[in-house]
Amino acid sequence: MPHNGQMKLFTGTANPALGQEVADFLGISLGGVHISRFASGEIYVRYEESVRGIDVFVLQPLSAPVNENLVELLIMIDALKRASAGRITAVIPYYGYARQEKKTAPREPITARMVADIITTVGADRVLTMDLHAPAIQGFFNIPVDHMTALPMLAQYIRGKGIANGVIIAPDAGIVKKAEKLATMLDLPLGVMYKRRPAHNVAQTTFVIGEVDGMQPIIIEDIIDTGGSVEQVIEALLSRGALPEIHILATHGVFSPPALERLNHPAIKEIVVTNTIAIPPERRPANLKILSVAPLLGDTIRRIHQNISVSALFN
Amino acid sequence: MPHNGQMKLFTGTANPALGQEVADFLGISLGGVHISRFASGEIYVRYEESVRGIDVFVLQPLSAPVNENLVELLIMIDALKRASAGRITAVIPYYGYARQEKKTAPREPITARMVADIITTVGADRVLTMDLHAPAIQGFFNIPVDHMTALPMLAQYIRGKGIANGVIIAPDAGIVKKAEKLATMLDLPLGVMYKRRPAHNVAQTTFVIGEVDGMQPIIIEDIIDTGGSVEQVIEALLSRGALPEIHILATHGVFSPPALERLNHPAIKEIVVTNTIAIPPERRPANLKILSVAPLLGDTIRRIHQNISVSALFN
Amino acid sequence: MPHNGQMKLFTGTANPALGQEVADFLGISLGGVHISRFASGEIYVRYEESVRGIDVFVLQPLSAPVNENLVELLIMIDALKRASAGRITAVIPYYGYARQEKKTAPREPITARMVADIITTVGADRVLTMDLHAPAIQGFFNIPVDHMTALPMLAQYIRGKGIANGVIIAPDAGIVKKAEKLATMLDLPLGVMYKRRPAHNVAQTTFVIGEVDGMQPIIIEDIIDTGGSVEQVIEALLSRGALPEIHILATHGVFSPPALERLNHPAIKEIVVTNTIAIPPERRPANLKILSVAPLLGDTIRRIHQNISVSALFN
Amino acid sequence: MPHNGQMKLFTGTANPALGQEVADFLGISLGGVHISRFASGEIYVRYEESVRGIDVFVLQPLSAPVNENLVELLIMIDALKRASAGRITAVIPYYGYARQEKKTAPREPITARMVADIITTVGADRVLTMDLHAPAIQGFFNIPVDHMTALPMLAQYIRGKGIANGVIIAPDAGIVKKAEKLATMLDLPLGVMYKRRPAHNVAQTTFVIGEVDGMQPIIIEDIIDTGGSVEQVIEALLSRGALPEIHILATHGVFSPPALERLNHPAIKEIVVTNTIAIPPERRPANLKILSVAPLLGDTIRRIHQNISVSALFN
Amino acid sequence: MPHNGQMKLFTGTANPALGQEVADFLGISLGGVHISRFASGEIYVRYEESVRGIDVFVLQPLSAPVNENLVELLIMIDALKRASAGRITAVIPYYGYARQEKKTAPREPITARMVADIITTVGADRVLTMDLHAPAIQGFFNIPVDHMTALPMLAQYIRGKGIANGVIIAPDAGIVKKAEKLATMLDLPLGVMYKRRPAHNVAQTTFVIGEVDGMQPIIIEDIIDTGGSVEQVIEALLSRGALPEIHILATHGVFSPPALERLNHPAIKEIVVTNTIAIPPERRPANLKILSVAPLLGDTIRRIHQNISVSALFN
Amino acid sequence: MPHNGQMKLFTGTANPALGQEVADFLGISLGGVHISRFASGEIYVRYEESVRGIDVFVLQPLSAPVNENLVELLIMIDALKRASAGRITAVIPYYGYARQEKKTAPREPITARMVADIITTVGADRVLTMDLHAPAIQGFFNIPVDHMTALPMLAQYIRGKGIANGVIIAPDAGIVKKAEKLATMLDLPLGVMYKRRPAHNVAQTTFVIGEVDGMQPIIIEDIIDTGGSVEQVIEALLSRGALPEIHILATHGVFSPPALERLNHPAIKEIVVTNTIAIPPERRPANLKILSVAPLLGDTIRRIHQNISVSALFN
Repeated sequence: MPHNGQMKLFTGTANPALGQEVADFLGISLGGVHISRFASGEIYVRYEESVRGIDVFVLQPLSAPVNENLVELLIMIDALKRASAGRITAVIPYYGYARQEKKTAPREPITARMVADIITTVGADRVLTMDLHAPAIQGFFNIPVDHMTALPMLAQYIRGKGIANGVIIAPDAGIVKKAEKLATMLDLPLGVMYKRRPAHNVAQTTFVIGEVDGMQPIIIEDIIDTGGSVEQVIEALLSRGALPEIHILATHGVFSPPALERLNHPAIKEIVVTNTIAIPPERRPANLKILSVAPLLGDTIRRIHQNISVSALFN
Repeated sequence: MPHNGQMKLFTGTANPALGQEVADFLGISLGGVHISRFASGEIYVRYEESVRGIDVFVLQPLSAPVNENLVELLIMIDALKRASAGRITAVIPYYGYARQEKKTAPREPITARMVADIITTVGADRVLTMDLHAPAIQGFFNIPVDHMTALPMLAQYIRGKGIANGVIIAPDAGIVKKAEKLATMLDLPLGVMYKRRPAHNVAQTTFVIGEVDGMQPIIIEDIIDTGGSVEQVIEALLSRGALPEIHILATHGVFSPPALERLNHPAIKEIVVTNTIAIPPERRPANLKILSVAPLLGDTIRRIHQNISVSALFN
Repeated sequence: MPHNGQMKLFTGTANPALGQEVADFLGISLGGVHISRFASGEIYVRYEESVRGIDVFVLQPLSAPVNENLVELLIMIDALKRASAGRITAVIPYYGYARQEKKTAPREPITARMVADIITTVGADRVLTMDLHAPAIQGFFNIPVDHMTALPMLAQYIRGKGIANGVIIAPDAGIVKKAEKLATMLDLPLGVMYKRRPAHNVAQTTFVIGEVDGMQPIIIEDIIDTGGSVEQVIEALLSRGALPEIHILATHGVFSPPALERLNHPAIKEIVVTNTIAIPPERRPANLKILSVAPLLGDTIRRIHQNISVSALFN
Repeated sequence: MPHNGQMKLFTGTANPALGQEVADFLGISLGGVHISRFASGEIYVRYEESVRGIDVFVLQPLSAPVNENLVELLIMIDALKRASAGRITAVIPYYGYARQEKKTAPREPITARMVADIITTVGADRVLTMDLHAPAIQGFFNIPVDHMTALPMLAQYIRGKGIANGVIIAPDAGIVKKAEKLATMLDLPLGVMYKRRPAHNVAQTTFVIGEVDGMQPIIIEDIIDTGGSVEQVIEALLSRGALPEIHILATHGVFSPPALERLNHPAIKEIVVTNTIAIPPERRPANLKILSVAPLLGDTIRRIHQNISVSALFN
Repeated sequence: MPHNGQMKLFTGTANPALGQEVADFLGISLGGVHISRFASGEIYVRYEESVRGIDVFVLQPLSAPVNENLVELLIMIDALKRASAGRITAVIPYYGYARQEKKTAPREPITARMVADIITTVGADRVLTMDLHAPAIQGFFNIPVDHMTALPMLAQYIRGKGIANGVIIAPDAGIVKKAEKLATMLDLPLGVMYKRRPAHNVAQTTFVIGEVDGMQPIIIEDIIDTGGSVEQVIEALLSRGALPEIHILATHGVFSPPALERLNHPAIKEIVVTNTIAIPPERRPANLKILSVAPLLGDTIRRIHQNISVSALFN
Repeated sequence: MPHNGQMKLFTGTANPALGQEVADFLGISLGGVHISRFASGEIYVRYEESVRGIDVFVLQPLSAPVNENLVELLIMIDALKRASAGRITAVIPYYGYARQEKKTAPREPITARMVADIITTVGADRVLTMDLHAPAIQGFFNIPVDHMTALPMLAQYIRGKGIANGVIIAPDAGIVKKAEKLATMLDLPLGVMYKRRPAHNVAQTTFVIGEVDGMQPIIIEDIIDTGGSVEQVIEALLSRGALPEIHILATHGVFSPPALERLNHPAIKEIVVTNTIAIPPERRPANLKILSVAPLLGDTIRRIHQNISVSALFN
């Protein structure tokens, strides 16, 4: 279906502050949409302005409460479709359920695929998302996906710190490729960690690969959720002589309990995340720095709307 | 895909007691399924026994928290599909979002259709449900729907009361047809209520049509949610001379707040609902009678599995 | 697929006069299309002008002969799709089969859904229709539906009559909501009718609720088909003292036999319908007034084509 | 969806006699189905017996009135699907609209494909048909098609006539392949006819290729519709010395007007068709012989039901 | 999805010279796309310039190696879809597998339909092709197909030869309709050939219908593949007195081995094909003339892009 | 569609020896299917025995020539679908294109998803595959996927060698998880390798993490293709003191050129792969051991057919 050259941006209730920031970046007002919940918990949505033929963007990260936010997004898309929106782009800065992207045991779901399917079924024409936990999730969609990364933004921030003796740390095997990219961007050495049982009947240990002695670790993650293994990671680094001035970087700050307790470690100098997820003050760990992805999302939205190459954002 | 002649019943977390009752009726054990939530709120499902080729029934009413229960149902179905279940029947005793089955204002969703679409998309082969708010919702599905009713059960219960001077009351236009059926079943007269503004600049009034003087009203609903208009309905009945010994019947007891307060009326003798929705003790109004739909669902499931006519249940 | 900014309107054979009126309203010529039937009864369609990239509207009510008109519409859409039309809107002023929108007995079809499915399958991008018998039929489509109503037009016409002592009559439960809207528009009181058996072994009676004594009834319907219960309705009204100067209003004048005989009642002053369905002179009852929906459809088509809000038509 | 090993056969209103014959062949009773038309012309269908899990066959040729019969078939399938039939086979002995299987001019439909799509959309699982006008129509379906031919039956009949000096005639280019098969079956020579303009400004002539002098022509067609070119064909044959004892064979006897007049030619000794289409006595030309395809369809249905090779029917 | 008014043309590796010619005709540069094969034989595609919102045409005939070329086309379309191309037209000058368009024996595929399905599945919005072996293949697609023919181009070329005593020869039944069109275009007489066994126990003979004595045969085909029956055809023509100055015309020059040997016949004066398929010098028979379809494809592409009637090309 | 309890196994031309082994394991004959190529390179398939209602398994790894083998598989499935196979399982021991499972640069395809889509489109009901390069590829399908692994088989083989001082080596980050599993199975220590540039302007080096001095490396891969980095890996191991008695294990032996040259290293004691891919003698490196997956596939096929839990294979 054609759109008529106009663009509107609406935001669900998951991260309205980010929606407002993106709108400000674009120099437009957020579109008017009424979203409420009945006493029964059912969601009610009604757009307060015409979307007929408009190139519509709906911003909603799939953060906690993830099922509420997911169904809200679906309903918002359904209403847009029936109201003859010209094109519907689901802007999902944080794609929840991304860690259930494969079966690791029999009779499990592949929820990340299921979420892609139902977003497509209800009528999304395209998706804009960021730093997917597994890049193959792009392939769970058959509609175009613009997959952006906050890595350059995190790199630029940490570069501003002027850390001379830094070392990029990949805390597990899954993040090594991203850590390599960051190390290249910052011209810093790389360390890799993994847990293993060095021999039979010996307790599992967290190993650090690469030189960290006398250096400031810069740990890179894609998601910080409950902070599960942070303590072990830090202890292993310190025991190998790393300085107790550790930075932790991640795109998505989920901070599920008991993240606050776990991340309250004296060796952590700063935790840097972005605002893909709204983090209420009471869930923010100490020394938290939040960078805004609004300029990145805003510029990408503008390029999508104007059919300009998005890959050019990274040149 | 063929099923192999075996049947299993699983229940989500929305109403496990009903699931157990149905299993007991069928003389089988509930199938083993692990359902949990991560700290982030994401749902995790894993079936603990093979479903390969099995004729599987998953019981989950879409009651509050409706979005949690809906997504849980979707994930349960996705996992079944990928585990090669032979046939998947979603048993949805209460179909939430049924009241958003049409657009009543521009740019609204039709959420009841959307729910049908995503249940089908993730892999349900058929649906078993009860007393849909609008019967056209059957047509929102293109997979077979078995649509059962608790009306005979409610009629039988009230008949056992031996109310000689009863009158069936349809509290609004939408329920008249069901009220007529009940009146026929019980051989009782019928009254219809509606609200209107008899003339310009006059307050809205609740009208009672038919004779209620000196009679015991038996109000029939499909859903009791917040109890919104109950007070007005009762006052209108009493002011027309009805006896303060009122029964209220409904299939689905949603009882969203402030239902408890509103339903605490001295003229209400008994409220009769079924257990399509799990009603925790603290949400139960006084004088509540809960009838079990387990035999009805159990018998229907058995007939579906054995390919026996379900309509015969009503002969 | 994009359209190129141009619009064309074609009409099937079901109501070409309405098509011409709409074209006149829009100030355009009807598009050229050859439609014929072979001796075998098979329909042949060929468009006589290019539709490549055009925003095409095809007007065809699903009136009698409904199956002929339905298949003709399907074939017209198929040819448009294969001829690279930019966007295809099926303009269906009267949506036939709307009364088969749910199963009321086992092993019935839901033909209203089936019709929606096949219209979508062959390639319609959107639908424009009027006064659906059941509003949930909107939800039978997953393409955008613009659902217009002739109610304001009927209200305006009857207001012009200056009937001081009028009363709006809903002849059965299904039409009460529309009757309430009309009563509000015209600032007139409301009466509701229904049939019931007041007690066992007593014949079914048509009841009138509300005051009609000495008043002029204005009966509102959505469809007048065979005129089945008109006689009973009128007798009930007269017996309650209503004046024998009755108006009957409806959007769709189906007038299947024996409507002519049944509607030939001396108490009927005027029957007002619209031209959604072509009514040949020999099928018109006495005292028939036909209002044209051409301006309403024309304006809506213009707004759809120009991506202007259609809901604004009702402000 | 699985079926339970049982089979039922229902017939629409297009050719109930054939349905009965097939049922008799199979030694079963026709399934009970109520089919009627409302005064408005809308079709109403209700199955009078359970089809749950049954392997159902619905017999309906797409003969005149083709659009009525097509929509009736669609509605019958929709009702079966919603009634949980185990498997639905549309038995379409004559596939109407088969001659609109390609575009021969711009902006035409491909109705034969459209018919395939809507039959599939409403829920048919497979199709059984006979002697399609163009064999590529099989490829218009993505569900299995069993494509049977009456050619051996026609050959056997004509062989019984003991025509010593016969010649098989293909009256146009489209039928040559079938004519060759028949000639091989009967061990008779072949003649081919076509129309052309031998030179500029010369009238179109019907040419006969091959020797026919003193021979009895046996003309083979797939469909006899209006009998359009029969006269020219016969004259051309006679002028080449063929004996005026001509047989015309075809699977499908459409006999649209003015077939009766055209086929009333003294040189026609017999016209042989099958009963894929019901031919009422008043539409039967003189010297018509109707062979029954009931044994062929019945045997095929039995094989489909029992999953036995159908191709074996031709060994 | 809308396109933004720009057009780009890319070519796969099957016939890049034709792609370049078409680009030259259109006055544009070929779009940059990297296509390579890994050592494992897997194809890798990456577009070197933005296609976001662009109206993209991908040229790839399905010539030998047909499976390589088919999969390459699919991958090129997949990449375009994911890169947000505005509209994707598969330009397939030669549609391979067209001769498998129906089942001629049990348990065969209908590969021509399968190819249509997978091209559509991966994301093509429309198809532009030429001289399909069977016109019903258009109906294998539900996306718009522009089906062009090289016949006027072949006619114009042969007209330039000034052959006074020419006769158009249809070498088998399948090509007669096209031969008739050519005969009309050139105002030449027509001959038809077919093979048959004139009587039992007599060898199969190739018959020539029509007058060829002392005339120059102009044989018309759609595809010249292995040249299988050319020798018999020529011998039959010569034995009927035709002059040994034969032209063979076809749109598609497949020339599979042993075409070279078979087409090396002294009576063949010229073989005329087009460049829908790239014919490397070593596979070209003697006396081969290759006409270019680049102007025809280029003009059609321009018209598709500009939404101008394509049928007008033939007026 | 139901299957009738019977099972048949067919094999394409990619690895018929494996197909025969699986059939032998199952104690059945391979099903008869004719597969050939026309001179034009087009594939022709015809099944030589009935598959009607049968539970059919088609074995075809997507090995080189991958595009030939892929299209052959598609055509084989299409023919099965049209021949009314009861259920179609594509047995794809090696899933080609698995390494194109995400976009790593703009405007790339996601070919692994595309392959999943077209296999599903043509009619596969389920897939059986082994050791996918990326496990998320399971989620590219919405039909059930049984994903088996040869790891236990490889572990058992190497255990039989009695290597006391072995160390499991993960040659890059992507294989670490599988290496950990193998280390656990064999109770051996683990080493991890990766390439990085330890500081700016320093050449890329292959690092070995973990102790390898005086130990026998057992390198684990999923695919051995061109053997690209084997030399560097071996040199790095040797330079760290590893013994020149190296084993390399992998499920899939692709061995594209120049694998033979690269794998001809004196430190390699044995290369162990399975027969998921047919490896002709001339492409086998020295010291190659091929284990058969036929028992694993055969047992899984039997369990799928009998609806027995497949996960039980790993208990």
